[in-house]
Amino acid sequence: MNYSSSHSSQGSSGPLSALVKKLAALPGLGPRSARRVALQLMMKKEGALLPLIAALQDAYDTITTCPTCGMLDDVAPCRICQDKSRDSGAICVVAGVADVWAIERAGGFRGAYHVLGGVLSALDGVNPADLSLIQLQRRVAADHPKEIILALPATVDGQATAHVVMDSLAEFPVKTSRLAHGMPVGGELDYLDDGTILTAFRQRVS
Amino acid sequence: MNYSSSHSSQGSSGPLSALVKKLAALPGLGPRSARRVALQLMMKKEGALLPLIAALQDAYDTITTCPTCGMLDDVAPCRICQDKSRDSGAICVVAGVADVWAIERAGGFRGAYHVLGGVLSALDGVNPADLSLIQLQRRVAADHPKEIILALPATVDGQATAHVVMDSLAEFPVKTSRLAHGMPVGGELDYLDDGTILTAFRQRVS
Repeated sequence: MNYSSSHSSQGSSGPLSALVKKLAALPGLGPRSARRVALQLMMKKEGALLPLIAALQDAYDTITTCPTCGMLDDVAPCRICQDKSRDSGAICVVAGVADVWAIERAGGFRGAYHVLGGVLSALDGVNPADLSLIQLQRRVAADHPKEIILALPATVDGQATAHVVMDSLAEFPVKTSRLAHGMPVGGELDYLDDGTILTAFRQRVS
Repeated sequence: MNYSSSHSSQGSSGPLSALVKKLAALPGLGPRSARRVALQLMMKKEGALLPLIAALQDAYDTITTCPTCGMLDDVAPCRICQDKSRDSGAICVVAGVADVWAIERAGGFRGAYHVLGGVLSALDGVNPADLSLIQLQRRVAADHPKEIILALPATVDGQATAHVVMDSLAEFPVKTSRLAHGMPVGGELDYLDDGTILTAFRQRVS
């Protein structure tokens, strides 16, 4: 028998290793977990793989960005913007979609949202033009909300973004507030526990 | 504004939360990482979501289990079974497909494989009938390999499985061997468990 030391391919064939490579590129998945996921899917082709393909295709076909607030939903405007029981007089400005999910999970806030699409970052080259600031100005000009609540990350970039948002709204007679510093400095909204998010909402300062 | 404490849905709509649920069911992915993956896919619909759907569909369409050895491949028999440069006189018996990948990554072994499809487990209700033991007997009877190398987990279940495999091959004039137990290469004595140290002592080589 030939115990050569040549490294052969990892024993997975074309389509399977292509799938592992695609899975490994997803956030939070490395090569090892990608292989585990691919194997599990191949073991349950009808029970897990087909439903996953269907769910991905369904999301691809139906999910769009809400033209009003920037949320992802399968209706436009999104369900939150359409919800008449919500108070459109308060707009909560967040960096991303995950932040809306986090605040909705915490419950308690029943106003509208505005998703900026990120925070300013010199490192990543994110400029004010990359954020939906003009859409926010248009919204404030058209809807005359009473309050803008800035729920941005308690990071340097997040707070710089909060300043730019406030500056961009300086011409409008609208009250702005920020989430209270119950948020841990350096923390991301998406990683906060519900109680902290609720407290920060209640203690927001003008 | 109404700060009710009612927990609304997590702000994600039907198809998106269905996708998050499917992703969260994959091994190694929890709800939070599933949300991150779903968001990243929605942000890069053409660049990441569509290629992932294509890779999954391709794997679904083409990957099958090798009728000879139990490996997954897009050809049948699989590439390893078809490879004339490999020595079919040595069959390495493993629990699962991931083990073949691990051995192939290590390089050095150039024989054939036999994937049992698991290890015996009283807890999980895995019986000898659930493993491809009869296929292995048929293979040994037809191909007359010189050696069967048992590369099964060094767990109680894995070693029980090794015994059952050896028993099932007792009637054939084939040499069986097991992977050596001992210190992992690069391992520190201080970090090894007692069982491994004892085994490494007992099976020391001169």
